[in-house]
Amino acid sequence: MVNVAILGFGVVGSGVAEVLTGNVGQIDRKAAESIRLKYILDVREFPDSPFADKFVRDFSVIEGDPDVDIVVETIGGVRAAKDFTERALKAGKSVVTSNKELVATHGYDLLRLAEEHGVSYLFEASVGGGIPIIRPLNQCLAANEIEEIAGILNGTTNYILTRMIRAGLSFEAALKEAQQNCYAEQDPTADIEGHDACRKICILSSLAFGRHIYPDQVPTEGITGVTLADVAYAASGRCKIKLLGRCIRREDGALYVYVAPHLVPDENPLSGVEDVFNAITVKGNAVGDVMFYGRGAGKLPTASAVVADVVDVAQHRRSRSSLRWGPGDPKAVVPAAGLSSAWYVRAALPAAAVGKSFGDVTFLTREGAPEEECAFLTAPMDQTALEKALAALGAPCVKMRVLG
Amino acid sequence: MVNVAILGFGVVGSGVAEVLTGNVGQIDRKAAESIRLKYILDVREFPDSPFADKFVRDFSVIEGDPDVDIVVETIGGVRAAKDFTERALKAGKSVVTSNKELVATHGYDLLRLAEEHGVSYLFEASVGGGIPIIRPLNQCLAANEIEEIAGILNGTTNYILTRMIRAGLSFEAALKEAQQNCYAEQDPTADIEGHDACRKICILSSLAFGRHIYPDQVPTEGITGVTLADVAYAASGRCKIKLLGRCIRREDGALYVYVAPHLVPDENPLSGVEDVFNAITVKGNAVGDVMFYGRGAGKLPTASAVVADVVDVAQHRRSRSSLRWGPGDPKAVVPAAGLSSAWYVRAALPAAAVGKSFGDVTFLTREGAPEEECAFLTAPMDQTALEKALAALGAPCVKMRVLG
Repeated sequence: MVNVAILGFGVVGSGVAEVLTGNVGQIDRKAAESIRLKYILDVREFPDSPFADKFVRDFSVIEGDPDVDIVVETIGGVRAAKDFTERALKAGKSVVTSNKELVATHGYDLLRLAEEHGVSYLFEASVGGGIPIIRPLNQCLAANEIEEIAGILNGTTNYILTRMIRAGLSFEAALKEAQQNCYAEQDPTADIEGHDACRKICILSSLAFGRHIYPDQVPTEGITGVTLADVAYAASGRCKIKLLGRCIRREDGALYVYVAPHLVPDENPLSGVEDVFNAITVKGNAVGDVMFYGRGAGKLPTASAVVADVVDVAQHRRSRSSLRWGPGDPKAVVPAAGLSSAWYVRAALPAAAVGKSFGDVTFLTREGAPEEECAFLTAPMDQTALEKALAALGAPCVKMRVLG
Repeated sequence: MVNVAILGFGVVGSGVAEVLTGNVGQIDRKAAESIRLKYILDVREFPDSPFADKFVRDFSVIEGDPDVDIVVETIGGVRAAKDFTERALKAGKSVVTSNKELVATHGYDLLRLAEEHGVSYLFEASVGGGIPIIRPLNQCLAANEIEEIAGILNGTTNYILTRMIRAGLSFEAALKEAQQNCYAEQDPTADIEGHDACRKICILSSLAFGRHIYPDQVPTEGITGVTLADVAYAASGRCKIKLLGRCIRREDGALYVYVAPHLVPDENPLSGVEDVFNAITVKGNAVGDVMFYGRGAGKLPTASAVVADVVDVAQHRRSRSSLRWGPGDPKAVVPAAGLSSAWYVRAALPAAAVGKSFGDVTFLTREGAPEEECAFLTAPMDQTALEKALAALGAPCVKMRVLG
C-alpha cells in the first residue's frame, strides 16, 4: 500500500484526486501496488467534496505521518510550495509536482535534496501537461547527445496565435476570447510575455544538457508584438507564427537558449500544432528528430502526468528514480544573438529600399499593405549582422527568426 | 561495469555498437554505470571492423560468461532469436531487442520467462524505431485507461504512399523507387501487405490492454490495392491515404484491432506524417490525445531505442523493469467489421446510381474520371451495413475507412 497526500486542491490537485480514484484499477495494476489518497492539504473547505474526509489544514500532519510515501505538490509558486517540498523530502517522502516555476528556479537544489534523502523528486507534469516528455527525454533518448530542442510550450499563446491565423482576430480580441474560454488567466502576463514557456525550456534544457539553466539566463520575448500584418505576411511565405522555446547546442557545447515568436514553415510538423495543443521536437545525434504532441494543460491531462510519476515512485520504492542535473553555470548559456538563422523583417519603407542593405531576400505579400511597407525573409545571418543591416535601412522594423 | 553482448551484426546490431561506443560519455552519465560492449555474435567475419576483437561465433560463450549482464538481440525472425533469447534469460541476463516479430508472437512467454529469472525483457525499438513509445505508453500514460491507438507504423509503406500523393507515382513505381533508396527490401511483402504494421499494433495493444494480442487475431490489409485514382479522390475530400494499425476499446472492454489503409482528414495530425516517418496517436481517458512522431526505422534511430533500453537495465539492476501483460484470449478481439466509421467508396457506376443504396453521401472528384465511376464518403456505419449497401449497388467497388 502506497499512501499519497495532495497539497493544494485547485485545478490540478483536484484532477489528481479524480484520476487516482477514478482509474484505480488501471493504476494499481501498473504499479503492482495499491495506491491510496490519504490527505488533501488546503486552507479552503470543501464540505461537499467526495474527498471531504481527507482534508487537513496543517502540513505537519502529512509531514509527521510515516505512512505517507508520496507528496503531490500542486500549490504552484515558490513560497509555500518550496517549503513543503523541502520538508517532505527531508521527511523521506518522494515529491511529485506540476510546478514549473519551482522546478525551473530551484530544481537543482531540490533534486539534490531528494538524492540526499534517498527519495525521488519528479515533475513530468511541469512541461507539456499530459504529454510524456520528461521521462522520454531522460530515458528513451538517453543514448543520444541532444543537439536541439524546440517546443510550442504554452497553450494559451498557441490558442491566441491560432485564432489570429484562422479567424483573423487581433491579438487583443484573441486574448479576450481565450480568457472567456478559460484558456487564459485574468492576468495573462506569464503566458503572453513568454515567462511560462521560459520556465519550461529551462527544465527541458537542464535535463537534456545536465546543467541547471535558470530563467534569468534565457532571453524571453512574448507574443504581444505580433500583428495580423505579420500573420498575413507569414502565410504568403507558407509559414505560421508560433511562440517557441528553443535550446541549441553549439559545437563547443555552449547553449543558445531563448523564447521568442518564430515563423515556422508549413512543412515543419510544429506548424500544424493548433489551439491549446503543445508539441516538443527533440533532435538527437542518433535518433534524428522526434516530436511529442498533446494537450499542454488542463485538469485531467496534467493530472495524468502527475499520477504517472506517482506510479513510477510506487514501482521503484527501493531504487529512487533518477532525474538529475548539475549546478548552474553562468557560462553554459551564450547570447542567442550569435545564433544564425533566416529572419523575417517587416519594415516601414518600400521594397526597393531593401536590396542595398540585405542583398537577395524573399519578399512577402499581404492584401491591403500600405505602399510604405514591405516584408521579406533574409538569408541566414546572426543577430549582429541583422541589426547592422536593419540600422542601415534607417526605418522602424519588426523582426522574427525563421525556424530552420 | 555493465557488459553487453550483441547478437547479429546487421544494420541494427552494428548501429548499436556504433552508438554504444560513439556516445559513451552521455550513456555512462545517464546510466551512472560504465556500459561496455564485450561480444558480438555473428557467423560472418568482419576483419576490418573496429570491433573485430569482439566477435564470437558460438552463443554459448556469451551464455556462459557471468560478466555479461545484457544481451542485445538484433538477429530478427523467430528461430535462433527465440532460442538465444530464452537461453540468455534463463542464464540471468536481461535481453533487449528490436525484434517485433518475436515480441508479437512470443512476447507473453518471454516476458514471463524474464520475470521468473528476475531479469528484464525490453523492446522499445520494436515499434516506431527511435520514437519513444513503449516506455511512454507503459509508464507515462499509466494513469489512463487507454481508449484507442492509431499509428503509421511502417516507414516503407508511408514512403510509397507519400510518393504516390506528392509525385503522382503509381504504386509500382513508388515501390521501385523505395527499393532503390533502400527504404524497401527486395522482397517487400512484409511491409506492403501490412504484416510489419500488424506485429507492431499487436505489441502496442498487448501493452496497453494487458492481454497478448497475436498477429493471427488481427485482420490485415496492405496498400497494394491503393491506386492513384483513390489518392486523387481522397485529396478532393481533403484527406490523405495512410496505412494505419488501429486498436479501439469497445465500451465492454472488447477490442477492435486491425491494419488497413484509411483516408485521414487533413486536420488530423497523422495526415502530415510523410516519407519514412512514423507516428502513433494514443487516446487516454485522462490525457486525451497524445502523439509520438519520428523516424520509424533506420540504423541509428533504432539503435538509439535499443541503447535506451540498455541504459534502463543498467539503471535498475536491482529492480527489474516492468513491462508485462497477460496471456492471450481468443475473445479479447472482436471482428473489426462491427466498428462504425465513415467509409470511402469508389464504384464503377455513375453518381446518380448511388443515392438509393446509401442515402446522403459526400461525392469526391478527380480529373479525368471516367463517366462510369464515382467516389464518395458515407455516413458512419459498420462494415455489415456497408457491405449490404454495396451489394445493392451491384457494381465492383473499392472501400476504405475514414479515420474519425
